[in-house]
Amino acid sequence: METQEKFQPTITGGSFLINQSPKRIFVNSDFTEEQNMMIASAKDFVEQEAMPLADELEKKKDLSQTINLLEKAGELGLLSLGVPENYGGIEVSFNTTLKVIEEVAKCTEFSPAFGVQTSIGIAPILLYGNEDQKAKYIPNLISGKWKGCYCLTEPDAGSDANSGKTKAVYDSNKKAYVLNGQKMWITNAGIADIFIVFAKVEDDKDLSAFVVEKSFEGLSLGDEEDKMGIRASSTRQVFLNDVAVPEANMLGKRGEGFKIALNVLSTGRIKLGIGGVGVSKKAICHSVEYAKQRKQFGKSISEFGAIKHKIAQMVTKTYALEAAAYRTGDYIDQKEAELLSTGVSKEQAKPKSVSAFGIECAIIKVFGTEVQDFVVDEGLQVYGGMGFSEEAPMARLYRDARISRIFEGTNEINRMLIVDMLLKKAMKGELDLMSAAQEVQSELTSVPSLTPDNETDEWAKAFSTIQNLKKAILAIAGSAAQKLMVKLKDEQEILMNIADMVIQLYVVESCWLRSQNKKDLLGEEAAQIELEISKLQLYDAIEEIKSAGQKAILSFAEGDDAKMLLMALKRFTKFNTFNLKESGRMIADKVIEEGEFCF
Amino acid sequence: METQEKFQPTITGGSFLINQSPKRIFVNSDFTEEQNMMIASAKDFVEQEAMPLADELEKKKDLSQTINLLEKAGELGLLSLGVPENYGGIEVSFNTTLKVIEEVAKCTEFSPAFGVQTSIGIAPILLYGNEDQKAKYIPNLISGKWKGCYCLTEPDAGSDANSGKTKAVYDSNKKAYVLNGQKMWITNAGIADIFIVFAKVEDDKDLSAFVVEKSFEGLSLGDEEDKMGIRASSTRQVFLNDVAVPEANMLGKRGEGFKIALNVLSTGRIKLGIGGVGVSKKAICHSVEYAKQRKQFGKSISEFGAIKHKIAQMVTKTYALEAAAYRTGDYIDQKEAELLSTGVSKEQAKPKSVSAFGIECAIIKVFGTEVQDFVVDEGLQVYGGMGFSEEAPMARLYRDARISRIFEGTNEINRMLIVDMLLKKAMKGELDLMSAAQEVQSELTSVPSLTPDNETDEWAKAFSTIQNLKKAILAIAGSAAQKLMVKLKDEQEILMNIADMVIQLYVVESCWLRSQNKKDLLGEEAAQIELEISKLQLYDAIEEIKSAGQKAILSFAEGDDAKMLLMALKRFTKFNTFNLKESGRMIADKVIEEGEFCF
Repeated sequence: METQEKFQPTITGGSFLINQSPKRIFVNSDFTEEQNMMIASAKDFVEQEAMPLADELEKKKDLSQTINLLEKAGELGLLSLGVPENYGGIEVSFNTTLKVIEEVAKCTEFSPAFGVQTSIGIAPILLYGNEDQKAKYIPNLISGKWKGCYCLTEPDAGSDANSGKTKAVYDSNKKAYVLNGQKMWITNAGIADIFIVFAKVEDDKDLSAFVVEKSFEGLSLGDEEDKMGIRASSTRQVFLNDVAVPEANMLGKRGEGFKIALNVLSTGRIKLGIGGVGVSKKAICHSVEYAKQRKQFGKSISEFGAIKHKIAQMVTKTYALEAAAYRTGDYIDQKEAELLSTGVSKEQAKPKSVSAFGIECAIIKVFGTEVQDFVVDEGLQVYGGMGFSEEAPMARLYRDARISRIFEGTNEINRMLIVDMLLKKAMKGELDLMSAAQEVQSELTSVPSLTPDNETDEWAKAFSTIQNLKKAILAIAGSAAQKLMVKLKDEQEILMNIADMVIQLYVVESCWLRSQNKKDLLGEEAAQIELEISKLQLYDAIEEIKSAGQKAILSFAEGDDAKMLLMALKRFTKFNTFNLKESGRMIADKVIEEGEFCF
Repeated sequence: METQEKFQPTITGGSFLINQSPKRIFVNSDFTEEQNMMIASAKDFVEQEAMPLADELEKKKDLSQTINLLEKAGELGLLSLGVPENYGGIEVSFNTTLKVIEEVAKCTEFSPAFGVQTSIGIAPILLYGNEDQKAKYIPNLISGKWKGCYCLTEPDAGSDANSGKTKAVYDSNKKAYVLNGQKMWITNAGIADIFIVFAKVEDDKDLSAFVVEKSFEGLSLGDEEDKMGIRASSTRQVFLNDVAVPEANMLGKRGEGFKIALNVLSTGRIKLGIGGVGVSKKAICHSVEYAKQRKQFGKSISEFGAIKHKIAQMVTKTYALEAAAYRTGDYIDQKEAELLSTGVSKEQAKPKSVSAFGIECAIIKVFGTEVQDFVVDEGLQVYGGMGFSEEAPMARLYRDARISRIFEGTNEINRMLIVDMLLKKAMKGELDLMSAAQEVQSELTSVPSLTPDNETDEWAKAFSTIQNLKKAILAIAGSAAQKLMVKLKDEQEILMNIADMVIQLYVVESCWLRSQNKKDLLGEEAAQIELEISKLQLYDAIEEIKSAGQKAILSFAEGDDAKMLLMALKRFTKFNTFNLKESGRMIADKVIEEGEFCF
């Protein structure tokens, strides 16, 4: 496991699984004053412009208000973040963009429109467009004058996006591709001027991407979909009936569309996960406020252990998610800086750096959207009967949150991608999983050291446990790969188990790195509650890894093989016990006192 | 643990925790031909009368259709089930009533109205009314001519129902109680003729119950609530402004209202849990149908392991829930028969028999509503993007299901009640928990038998494991009670952990008893899939019991005490491994082949 040197200073996507934990990761206090000003302006925009319109957006479905808000956001520069200055953009770090998205996510009525406009609606042009395309579209998209949308999904092509039937046929007279087809679940379709459409040219195997303008003849929209949540946002079908798209409007090269679609989705994934941070913080704030004022049996329900337990769980998971999400954003920032310094163009550096951390982006997507669903569900339960009322905030948050586990690749697809990307990196030699797994194998066949763990520092003990968790995962995943070989890809149940372990590992390591940073900066006392949070998150991560690991083992191994792996799992998931209830109460009491997520 | 003799043939509520597993429990094939005819008529009513109106009920909120349906149900006798013949009722077994409710639950647009009418809207009069009250109200409620509702909750009195502020002052001139107050979340309020209202007479400590008619001056309604789900049902506030209620309309004695409320809720609880069976079967049916027809990556998504895993989990939990629910209903039937045979009146026998199994009713409520939420959530995920559309069935099921974890006592309140009722029964000497716990303690201090388990029969092995699970629970709960004494009631986190273990135990034992019954009747081959279901349910139950048990131990025990209990937990949760993935696939393949929940 002594591979840290090899990967420093540049971090490789997926390397968290084999490396020693890094010394530190990016945390909120790393934002500069300038970055914090931008974040504050986003926060003001949400609180003063968007939230006051939230009920109207939800109930009247008046899209003109959404359009107004996008334009105001444009005026404030919030649509320009991360766009190069030569197109009128504001070059901020990726983490700054993520923090802005976290703030906007709190207004679930507006955030889908904002998310599409700033992410998948603009990225294909920004990342793959030529100079003419960028000059024409980008300034108008980031000012909010034009609204964008992203047309990939079709009635028969969801998870299997590359199987879309929309066809493009080249017409040499018109010097245009003539598009025919039907796109579905298109967020912002009802307000969009610019449609990024994926279609197959002739009988190509892979998609191509086109910029279609609303004014092009033959483009029409279906009715607004009746959705369970995010009702304030426009979702419609897009019909393409002999739409002639000038050849100059093809993005990238013919057949590059699927690659464009996937790369853009990686960015979308981490942004969805970050949305989970914002929504969870908001739900925690509401739940704590309600629990404090709601009195039953002669006291505030926030004084009951059952409620404190819920609040502690909500807070712990949100804290850990936030740690992992901004750790990832920072890796992408670092990678981009490194690529730029080696002469890679601005246009190339961003997608390359995001795709270098595709594994981590998928982890944040899965964990973030599941934390979000957990938190809004528990928050609703704290509200009791009022939780079910549309007059209180939790019902809408509950309905709105549910789409995120489906958007940008279902969480099942993302789980499989995590393992798939890890294996591909291993095969390409980018990540030496095999040596690491073999090292664990040989450690397993040697006599375990009986030296008692004399480590007394909580953080050192935790990081030593986390290294052991890596060994547990490597042992199981390595054996599964060895035993099943190419058949592993058909054993989705096992892939999901492995993904669950990997997700928990990355998150819990990030959680401890975050609280360690606080301790290093401000001392042990200041980091006391964060230590309790980290302990609870480690407890849960170990339980999850044991559970997923055992399921995997019992699904591919038998007899002595299974026994040996179960022993390894047991050996590598040992932990120091502590009083769970007391830790939970300390965390809850702090948040109840402060009245909000206060870390 | 050799206490079976003592409790046979009469079963005591809660005794499953200390007794040997019974020889058999009630299963679907125990319904008689006559009972099946009644159930079939309910099924026909749902499919032919209610379901065709479902969309209209949901979208138009036209309550006249709900009223029509209730009246039609009345004509068919579906509102009369379990009501004595002398009031025009149809005396069927409680389990028959439950099966009818399971069928009606599938129409989530109509089931709340039906549920209130047949359960909490009528039970207070049926169980506690005098002859005059019953003669006046019951025939009109079971014919559907009058609609009933149940007014307990107030803005400041939810879980703490007895703290309601609605006041009744006796007016000797009018020979009436004058009621003032405000009731909230009253299902069926908008269609009701009869309001069962709970109020405190003067400065009484406990509530009293009154029958209030819609025509009584001073009764008025709030607007329809805007709810996240069960939108087709009427939910309004009820205002009582100097409503003079004739003294003849008091139910039971002054101050008996809280007892009435609680007993009626016990019935409501098992019925809510049973609703979970119906909704889960429906969601499974839809999900399987969709997964078969939805093609991605060149095949039906039902062929993918990730989808099969979901279907297997949905089916397994539903099967286990159904087993436990009808086991409980049958205990209530048996108890009622026994009470009747010893001369207890019909009126007294029913509430006494339900309340004898209050623990089991609460278990079914918690497990049933959580299985339901799990199944609709996974079902929605199987649908992917379509799951989020209100045009497909899963979104509505998802929204509608969510209230059940709050109705009739939140699941948190019910969990605490489970432990509270167990301890009270132990203190009253009705359940010898203490001896059983002590027996486990002494077994723990003796040397464990090293004789290998030679049992080869899968069922015998499972029941032996289940007895061990009882020991694990007794060891932990016993130690917690011993250590914390009266403080235990304030340690809600620990109460929840104990409740989780008890719930899992009762359900998994029921699951195995159900599949064993099939094997005994039709042979091993016929019960093959049900064996796989039982194995998966046992696997999950053991994991849950280990997880909850460990959390409890770490929250109240330290040092050697904690070590000893963790050892006990480990020793009593040993199990035989099997291939989880293969079991899941066998179950899923069967259900996919049949196209529905087919057990």
